[in-house]
Amino acid sequence: MNKKPKIVILGAGYGGIMTASRLIKSNTQQDAEITLVNKHNYHYQTTWLHEPAAGTLHHDKTRMEISSVIDLKKINFIKDSVVEIKKDEKKVILENGEVDYDYLVIGLGSEPETFGIPGVNENSFAIRSVNSVRLLREHIEYMFASYNKEDEKHEDILTFVVAGAGFTGIEFVGELSERVPELCEEYDIDPKKVKIYSVEAAPTALPGFDEELVEYAMNVLESRGVEFKINTPIKEVQDGKVLLNDGEEIKSQTIVWTTGIRGSSIIEDSGFETMRGRVKVEKDLRAPGYDNVFIIGDCALIINEEINRPYPPTAQIAIQQAYTCSKNLKDLISGKEELDVFKPEIQGTVASLGGKEAIGLVGDRKLYGGSASAMKKIIDNKYLFQLGGVPLVLKKGKFNFF
Amino acid sequence: MNKKPKIVILGAGYGGIMTASRLIKSNTQQDAEITLVNKHNYHYQTTWLHEPAAGTLHHDKTRMEISSVIDLKKINFIKDSVVEIKKDEKKVILENGEVDYDYLVIGLGSEPETFGIPGVNENSFAIRSVNSVRLLREHIEYMFASYNKEDEKHEDILTFVVAGAGFTGIEFVGELSERVPELCEEYDIDPKKVKIYSVEAAPTALPGFDEELVEYAMNVLESRGVEFKINTPIKEVQDGKVLLNDGEEIKSQTIVWTTGIRGSSIIEDSGFETMRGRVKVEKDLRAPGYDNVFIIGDCALIINEEINRPYPPTAQIAIQQAYTCSKNLKDLISGKEELDVFKPEIQGTVASLGGKEAIGLVGDRKLYGGSASAMKKIIDNKYLFQLGGVPLVLKKGKFNFF
Repeated sequence: MNKKPKIVILGAGYGGIMTASRLIKSNTQQDAEITLVNKHNYHYQTTWLHEPAAGTLHHDKTRMEISSVIDLKKINFIKDSVVEIKKDEKKVILENGEVDYDYLVIGLGSEPETFGIPGVNENSFAIRSVNSVRLLREHIEYMFASYNKEDEKHEDILTFVVAGAGFTGIEFVGELSERVPELCEEYDIDPKKVKIYSVEAAPTALPGFDEELVEYAMNVLESRGVEFKINTPIKEVQDGKVLLNDGEEIKSQTIVWTTGIRGSSIIEDSGFETMRGRVKVEKDLRAPGYDNVFIIGDCALIINEEINRPYPPTAQIAIQQAYTCSKNLKDLISGKEELDVFKPEIQGTVASLGGKEAIGLVGDRKLYGGSASAMKKIIDNKYLFQLGGVPLVLKKGKFNFF
Repeated sequence: MNKKPKIVILGAGYGGIMTASRLIKSNTQQDAEITLVNKHNYHYQTTWLHEPAAGTLHHDKTRMEISSVIDLKKINFIKDSVVEIKKDEKKVILENGEVDYDYLVIGLGSEPETFGIPGVNENSFAIRSVNSVRLLREHIEYMFASYNKEDEKHEDILTFVVAGAGFTGIEFVGELSERVPELCEEYDIDPKKVKIYSVEAAPTALPGFDEELVEYAMNVLESRGVEFKINTPIKEVQDGKVLLNDGEEIKSQTIVWTTGIRGSSIIEDSGFETMRGRVKVEKDLRAPGYDNVFIIGDCALIINEEINRPYPPTAQIAIQQAYTCSKNLKDLISGKEELDVFKPEIQGTVASLGGKEAIGLVGDRKLYGGSASAMKKIIDNKYLFQLGGVPLVLKKGKFNFF
């Protein structure tokens, strides 16, 4: 009697859940036993998290129960946290057990990149998970609620420092600057007392993005009172303040760290060779030396050969990798030797700036304001459609009501 | 040329704002210059504050702009804080100025009574003002938001200690116990992990209230998981814990102090003789020895001669005092020598327990559940009607929609 091979997918982020979804669509569960392991019983959309972090969208709009998008009669689901991957023994150690595999898909996501700057993890908030963003939202509201309760009015209560002006940082600043007037109204605070700093070490906000669009974004955000400190590396984060390289310090009770990400430390701790926590995978997305292990999403490093630099880790690429990964898994199981080569197709990049403002680049076309904002919603809805069809779009989708 | 006498009213709580309102209704502004001084440009309903404190009602429902209920073309309004009353010089020192008077009405409200227990002011929350309750609400939400973010799950994050099982304490516990299931749903927390303690030094909850009703209230609250510690004095409040006299300690990040109130310390600091911050006023509500000074509301002590004990300071009594006080002011100005004697008419006492539960005593009639809850709303709406007529009831009133 032939036993079915076991496929284990670690993580139900963009890459993991889409791999599970594609495997079911291609009926791979007939030929393999598929198991999905995830810390939570829900999947969430990392690229939306800046909204619940600022309080402009409820966090439940960014997440969905795994059982609502994946047919759990067709695959196994284990709600547990991964501790270590024993790649030579083909098993995964979980907090409450372990699981064997014949084929493994690693989609364990990312961690904040601190660049070794002291005090970051202890003294700053992250935009990373449903848990972390609802804490940040509550913290921000608590600051506003505190201000009129204090006998001495400390400015740092209403000062918000966002470290990093990449996509997450800019999108969060956009939402926060939209939310501030509401919070001021709610807590009887003069909006002039609120300060939002966007601090970036690189010589520009949104490094690598189209200059004209960056300028547009900065103008929009500055008009809402955001102060940019570009070309300004951070030396240290202390409790209640940020020390800049140039000697200045900014006192703030709310420091949000968005200077980029590195791959999950589980990968490195499990003995894979990594660069900033990411494994430089083969063209078919397998880990070098491990023909039965695929690595996708934020844990995978793919070089853009045109410019000889890694592609930034995005949801778009993770989703595309899931398509290739699931296809290659099915092929492997059915005995094919030639696997598909992964090649990202960048369909467009849009950054929301809060409210109806956004910027975007679709091919060579630059988008501003309303049209970029509409494009952002179309992209978000497209993912929901890929994952759960029309019902999921209707349930969790974003719509403009003009 | 005769100058009009100056009436100054300190505080726009129940007593102060209703005095201003009654003076205008009796056209006293034709014969006197009336000034109302208040810290905020709004009046709020202290007896409703347990609801926004728990997050079951928005704080804006409990407050209204003074200009929306008092015609500021007829009286002066000064938004400032009172520092001291120079009663022999007939003037009041404010934070940003001073104001002279011929007649003074002191309605400066109360402060939490700590009974000298160490650490109360530093380590506990109060249900005292719009500012204090929205801070408490945000703090509670922050606790729930924190829980799943902590690596180690500390029980004290989800433990709530309400010190004092008087009216405010019981009403707050009622609202909080109604809100907890919602917060658990919102933040993915098992409701069993949440603990609410109601700690009372006296041998019963709601001391002095009808025993049968007290038992009903405790049963309702216990059925929602509230744990009572009656006959349990508190020795000290420290950062993150309450030490009880019996040696036990309860770890909690949220300690709410509701063991009663004392009159505003401004009264004592201004040289009036007080008991627990309250002045034992004459029968016409004037301060002993100061024929031009009326003291009303939480700052006034009135003895219930039937039982030879002070009446508890309530909104009901403050409002009734405002009627007597404004009448007496008008009479004084028009040269009458015989002033009205204040006599409270206790029309009923109702405590809400959250949701549709309440207990009440109207005359000898005991009310439970829905009928008590409806009565509570009728009382609240009656006050709004007295203050601002039907429009205010429609705007800020409470209605049952069955």
